[in-house]
Amino acid sequence: MKKLSDTEIDDQLKSLDGWTYAKGAIHTSFEFENFKEAFTVMTRIAFEAEAQEHHPNWGNVYNQLEISLSTHDANGVTEKDFKLARTIEEIIESTN
Amino acid sequence: MKKLSDTEIDDQLKSLDGWTYAKGAIHTSFEFENFKEAFTVMTRIAFEAEAQEHHPNWGNVYNQLEISLSTHDANGVTEKDFKLARTIEEIIESTN
Repeated sequence: MKKLSDTEIDDQLKSLDGWTYAKGAIHTSFEFENFKEAFTVMTRIAFEAEAQEHHPNWGNVYNQLEISLSTHDANGVTEKDFKLARTIEEIIESTN
Repeated sequence: MKKLSDTEIDDQLKSLDGWTYAKGAIHTSFEFENFKEAFTVMTRIAFEAEAQEHHPNWGNVYNQLEISLSTHDANGVTEKDFKLARTIEEIIESTN
């Protein structure tokens, strides 16, 4: 899986909502109603991540969820990360 | 819920396995076989945390899980944190 260039990453970020690129990864965060809502979304993301064989670096405190995506083997951001990011967006949108 | 003193925290930590106290919270980390195993344990912890109305500050990358517990309202560590920590230990032990 080819590491994307900064230009390619910036370009792909335009098609996502609220993601940023820093330190070799793309990042976003969400705030939910409460812990149960946050963990419900995490569970949906977990199943998709497992199916894509690509996993997030993520943290949660109560209703807050922070997600960073990068591809370890490529030492940067690849198409795998954008695929998972788009999936995460779809899951978030479907819960609104 | 009363904030515990450093001495009380150190004393209670002795009854736990592999937890440390730093920066107003107690911390531990676990390594699992893979993401699925890690998230399975996270799900079990999530249900218990919700039942205890006390939630972890936690992060996961693939098979790794880091957990910090503190009580926001008390600005430190309370009995609530040790209760959840003991529950987490029971969950981990039951998976081994």
